[in-house]
Amino acid sequence: MNMYESPAFSDVRPADPVLAGRIAKCIEKTIPSSVARAVETGRIDAFDLDHYHGERHIYWDSDVAKILEGIAYALRLRPDEKLAALFEAWTKKIVSCQCPDGYLNSYFTAVKPGERWKTLSTQHELYCAGHLMEAAVAGRDLPGGKAFFDAVCRYADLICDTFGRGKDQRRGWPGHEEIELALVKLYRATGNRRYLDQAAYFIDDRGSHPNVFEAEEGITEPFLVNVQADKPVREMTEACGHAVRAVYLYAGMADLARETDDAGLLNVCEKLFDSICSRKMYVTGGIGSSFQGERFTRGYDLANGSLMYAESCAAMGLCQLASRLFDMTGKTLYMDVLETALYNGVLSGISLAGDDFFYTNYLEVDENLVCYNSGSPVRQKWFSCSCCPTSFCRFLPQMGRFIYSLGDGEIAVNIPAANTAELKLADRTVKLKIEGDYPYSGKVRIVVETSGAFTLRLRIPGWCRAWRLAAGGKTYAEPVITKNWQAGEAVELDLDMPADFLHSDPRVTGNLGRAALRRGPVVYALEEMDQTCPVRELVLCADRPVTVGAAPGLPAGTPALRGTALREIFSGSGLYAVGAPRYEETHFTAIPYALWQNRGRTNMCVWNRVRYEKETPESR
Amino acid sequence: MNMYESPAFSDVRPADPVLAGRIAKCIEKTIPSSVARAVETGRIDAFDLDHYHGERHIYWDSDVAKILEGIAYALRLRPDEKLAALFEAWTKKIVSCQCPDGYLNSYFTAVKPGERWKTLSTQHELYCAGHLMEAAVAGRDLPGGKAFFDAVCRYADLICDTFGRGKDQRRGWPGHEEIELALVKLYRATGNRRYLDQAAYFIDDRGSHPNVFEAEEGITEPFLVNVQADKPVREMTEACGHAVRAVYLYAGMADLARETDDAGLLNVCEKLFDSICSRKMYVTGGIGSSFQGERFTRGYDLANGSLMYAESCAAMGLCQLASRLFDMTGKTLYMDVLETALYNGVLSGISLAGDDFFYTNYLEVDENLVCYNSGSPVRQKWFSCSCCPTSFCRFLPQMGRFIYSLGDGEIAVNIPAANTAELKLADRTVKLKIEGDYPYSGKVRIVVETSGAFTLRLRIPGWCRAWRLAAGGKTYAEPVITKNWQAGEAVELDLDMPADFLHSDPRVTGNLGRAALRRGPVVYALEEMDQTCPVRELVLCADRPVTVGAAPGLPAGTPALRGTALREIFSGSGLYAVGAPRYEETHFTAIPYALWQNRGRTNMCVWNRVRYEKETPESR
Repeated sequence: MNMYESPAFSDVRPADPVLAGRIAKCIEKTIPSSVARAVETGRIDAFDLDHYHGERHIYWDSDVAKILEGIAYALRLRPDEKLAALFEAWTKKIVSCQCPDGYLNSYFTAVKPGERWKTLSTQHELYCAGHLMEAAVAGRDLPGGKAFFDAVCRYADLICDTFGRGKDQRRGWPGHEEIELALVKLYRATGNRRYLDQAAYFIDDRGSHPNVFEAEEGITEPFLVNVQADKPVREMTEACGHAVRAVYLYAGMADLARETDDAGLLNVCEKLFDSICSRKMYVTGGIGSSFQGERFTRGYDLANGSLMYAESCAAMGLCQLASRLFDMTGKTLYMDVLETALYNGVLSGISLAGDDFFYTNYLEVDENLVCYNSGSPVRQKWFSCSCCPTSFCRFLPQMGRFIYSLGDGEIAVNIPAANTAELKLADRTVKLKIEGDYPYSGKVRIVVETSGAFTLRLRIPGWCRAWRLAAGGKTYAEPVITKNWQAGEAVELDLDMPADFLHSDPRVTGNLGRAALRRGPVVYALEEMDQTCPVRELVLCADRPVTVGAAPGLPAGTPALRGTALREIFSGSGLYAVGAPRYEETHFTAIPYALWQNRGRTNMCVWNRVRYEKETPESR
Repeated sequence: MNMYESPAFSDVRPADPVLAGRIAKCIEKTIPSSVARAVETGRIDAFDLDHYHGERHIYWDSDVAKILEGIAYALRLRPDEKLAALFEAWTKKIVSCQCPDGYLNSYFTAVKPGERWKTLSTQHELYCAGHLMEAAVAGRDLPGGKAFFDAVCRYADLICDTFGRGKDQRRGWPGHEEIELALVKLYRATGNRRYLDQAAYFIDDRGSHPNVFEAEEGITEPFLVNVQADKPVREMTEACGHAVRAVYLYAGMADLARETDDAGLLNVCEKLFDSICSRKMYVTGGIGSSFQGERFTRGYDLANGSLMYAESCAAMGLCQLASRLFDMTGKTLYMDVLETALYNGVLSGISLAGDDFFYTNYLEVDENLVCYNSGSPVRQKWFSCSCCPTSFCRFLPQMGRFIYSLGDGEIAVNIPAANTAELKLADRTVKLKIEGDYPYSGKVRIVVETSGAFTLRLRIPGWCRAWRLAAGGKTYAEPVITKNWQAGEAVELDLDMPADFLHSDPRVTGNLGRAALRRGPVVYALEEMDQTCPVRELVLCADRPVTVGAAPGLPAGTPALRGTALREIFSGSGLYAVGAPRYEETHFTAIPYALWQNRGRTNMCVWNRVRYEKETPESR
C-alpha cells in the first residue's frame, strides 16, 4: 500500500494541447466568472449576517469555499494581486460569520439558528464544513489565510466535539459526504490526529445500527441508499446512490485507509471502484447515469439520451478517487479510468470559453428527444444549484498533478502530456520535460534534465495495443527504465494510436448495434454540423479506413476523424413503413467528445450505428 | 359529415379468436374482480356519508361509475341476476349521497364541502360527473336505473346552471376532460338540448381569454398545456398534454361537431388526430409517450423502454376517437389506427386471465433497465389510481361495435372479425355472419342471412397490399358490393397477410437499425423465454423467410412467427471492447405483442435489431 504520492500540482506545468489551455482558461475565465456570479447571486453578502436579508441556500457556503480553493490554486500557478486581495476579503467575511462556539455556516446561523445539526441527511451542513476545510488548507499561506485556517480549525474542533460515540457527543453523519476527505486533509496540514479520528468516526459509524438517519430523521429507502447510509461502509460492494456523494465518500475512505494502513478498507474501495468501471460507467468516464437522484442505478443501465445524467462533478470525483487508488496500489487500471474521465467526461462539462457548463453530460442529443433531467443540451452560465462550475474552479488548476506519481526512487509517468516539472523525490528534486501532442499523438519525448539515478516507469495505457520505448539508442521491452540519468538524456515513447470502434456489453441495450469511436484516450462524437445529413441517419462503415484530419472551428491541432458512412434513406412517408431502408454512401466527421457544442447548438451522438462489410456468421 | 353510425354493440356478437374471448373474460373476471377491489378499497362504502370514515379520493366516484357502466353493458350481453342486483344496490348508494341541490360527489361532500368547484384544474370533480352520466345512460333501463338516471340528470342540471357565461353563472372547465362527451350522450338519451349546449360551453370556453385556470387557480405552463387549456380548442393543431384527457376532449369535440354539423370543429379534430398518428403514436397504437405528466411530447419522441408511458386508458380513448372520426368521414385511416390500437396497445393492457393490468404499456423490457414511470414490467391487480382496470370494464364489452358501421342503405365491414350480427338499417334489420380467424388469418367469409338490397362495403386495411373479393362466382376489383342479396349468399374476402418488417422514421432515434414485426393488424414481440439467448443479443435476418407456427403456452390458434436471426457475441470481457462482435446463426420466435407477459416475467422487445443480407449502396 502507499506505493506513490502525487506531486504538488504546482510542480508540474502542462504545455500540451489540452490541459494547459484549460488551466489557463480556468484562471482567466472560469474563476473570475464564478466570482462574479457568486457576488451577483448574494453568496458573498450572505456572510454579512447583520445587513444581508436576501435569499440564502444551504449549499451556498460550499460554492464560495470551492471558488476560494480554486483561487488559492490559481495563485500558486500565476500571482495575481486582485485575486489575492479577494481571497483575503472573502475569507474575512466568512470568519466574521463564525459563532462564538466556532460554528460557521451562513445559512443556518441566519435562517435556522435553532436547527443546527438537526437535518444532516438533507441539509448539506457538514458538506459545507468540508469545503471550508479544503479551502482553508489550500489558502493557508495566503494573506488572510492564517486567520481563515484558524477559524476553520475551530469549526472543525466543534464538529469533533459534537459528533461521535463518546460521552457528551451525539452520533451523526453528513448527508452529502465530503467532510471525511477534508478532515484527512486537515490532519495532514496540522498533524492533529483528532481530525483523522473524526474522519474515521464519520466513515465507520455511517450506516451502522441503530441508523441515526432512520431513527432521528425518518429517512427510509430509497433515500437511505441514495446517501450511502443503508449499511456500514465496510459491507458495501456495489457503488450505489448519488454518484458525487458516493465517490467523495470512497475517496475519504481511501484516504483513511492510506493514513491508517487499513488494507481491509482499501479492499472495500477497490471493490466499489470495480463495480463502477465494470458495470456503471459511460465510455466517457461519466458516472451516475440516472437523472432521478443523480445516482448510480443497476449495472448496464447506461442510457445515452434524455434519461441520462453523468454529472460533471461526479466525473471530477471519479478522477480524485482513481488518483488515490492508483497512488496506493500502482494498478494502471485506475489511471486508465482517470485518463478516460479527464479527457472526456470531465472536460465536456465546460466550454472552451471557460464559462459555460454542463451539469448533465449527454452522450446523445437529438432535437426530437425531450430532456427529462435538469440538464439542457446547451451549456449554461450558472445553475440554481451551481456545484459544477465551482468544482471546475478547483479541479482544473490541479490537473497537472495527474501526470506523474512519485515513488521510492521512482517517477511514474501516468499521462504523458507535454509539461515541464520539478519533481520532489525523497532525497532530491528531478527536473523533467515531456514533449509531444498527447493525447492527440502517441509520440512522446521525455527529457530528463537532472542527472542522477532513479527509475522512470511509463504507463502503457489500456487503450494501447502496441508501443515502442527507446532511450540512448536502446529499446525496452518493459516500460521501466532504471538507470543513472545524465542531464539532457531523452526517452522516446511511441504509443500506437489508431482510431478504434468500441462496442459495449450487449446488456447496455441502448448501444446495441452501435459503436463509439476512440483514438488514444479521446472519445469522439459526431456533431450534426459536420455531417452531410442528420447524425441519426448515419451508419458508420467500421471496417473502412478512418483518417485523421483537421477539425474546423476547433483549436488548431485538434484532430478530427473522417471515414465512410452509409446514409439510411427511410422508405416511408408516414411514421412507420414496410420494407428495408435504402442506403447512400457518404462520409462522416467526428470530433473529440469533450469539445462538442462549442460551435453552436447541434445534434450530437457518441454511440453511432456501425456496420461491418462482413458480419455474417460465415465470416468468423 | 355523419356518413355512418356505429351499431349497438349488443347487436354484434364476436366469435373470433381475440375479441370474443376478451369480452367473455371481462364479464367473468375483469368486472367481478373490479367489483371486489372497489368494495375492498372502500370506494362503495365511501358513498355512505354517515358511517364511512376511511380513506377517500377525488377519482373514486369515477371508478365506481365506470364499473357500473361496464356492468350495464355486460348485462346486455349476458343476463346475470347478481350483477343486476349489484347495479341496483350501488346506484341506490350513490343516489343517497346526493345533496339537496343535486350535487353528487362523495369526496367533496364528505371531505371538502366548502371547496366545491374551487380547484377544477386538478380535482377531477367534473370528470367524475361525466362518468356518472355515462353510467346512468348505460344503465337507464336496468332495475334502479331510472332513479339513478334522474339523480344524475339533476346533477347535470346543477352543472348546467352553474357553469357558463350567463348571468348568475361562473366560468369553469374540467381539468380532466370527459364530461363533454358525457353531456352529448345525455343529450342523445334525453333530447334535452341544454346538455348539448353545456358540452358546447365546456368545449368552446376552454382556453379562452381570460383564462380561468390561470386567473383563479394560478395554473401556468406547462400544466396549462397538460390540461389542454393553454389556448381555445379551435386553435389547436397539435395533440398536447395528458394523452387521456386530450383524446377524451377531442372525442367530445367530434360529438359536438356531429350534433351541430360543425365542419370547422371536425376539421380541428382531424388535424389533431393526424398530429397523433403521423408523429406521436407507437406502432402498437399506444399514445402519450412521456411518463412525466402521462403526456404527448414532441413528435418522434417515442422511447421504448424505461421512459415510456402509453397508458392503457389512452389507447382505449384513441379507439373511441377514431371510431367517431371514421363514422363521420368514412376515411379508412381512422379504422387503421383503431384496429392497430385495439389489437395491440389496448389488449396488451390486460392479462389473458382478465384481472392483471398494465398502466404503462412498454415496448421493451430488459432487466438491466430501471423503470422510471409508475409502471411495472409485470401487470398489477389494481393501482392506487386505478383508472385502467375500470376502463377495461366498460371498454371490452363494447368492442363488437367496432366491427361494423351502418350508413344509408350500406353496411361497412370495418374489422372482419368473426361474429353474428343483427344490424339495424333505417328500414330493416339485416342478419350477417362473418367466419374466419381474423386477425390471425386474412381469409374471411361473410354470409348475408337476410334477403334484400343494400351495399356491403369492405375495408381494405392499410397494412394489406393484395386482396381478392368474390361473391356468387364473381370477383370484384373494388371492395364494394351493391346488390339485392339472397339469404345465405356468401362473400369471400382474402386479405394477403405476410409477416412484415416495419421500419420507423429515423427521427424516432430509439428505433434506428431496428424493425417491428407485424402480420395483419397484429404487432409482434420477442419474449426472452422463447429465444435461444437474451433478446438483446438477437439481430433478425429480415430478408430470410418468416414462418407461421404455434405459440406454446398461449391460446390455441395464436400464431407465432419464426425466422432466422444472428446472435451477437460480444468480443470483450469488460464493459467496452475494441473490435467487431462475432455472430452465430440461430432463430427467433415472436408472439403477438398484446399477449406478452402472460407466461411469467421475462424480457421483451418489439423493435428488434434487423439486418438485410444486401444493404450496401450497390444493392439499390
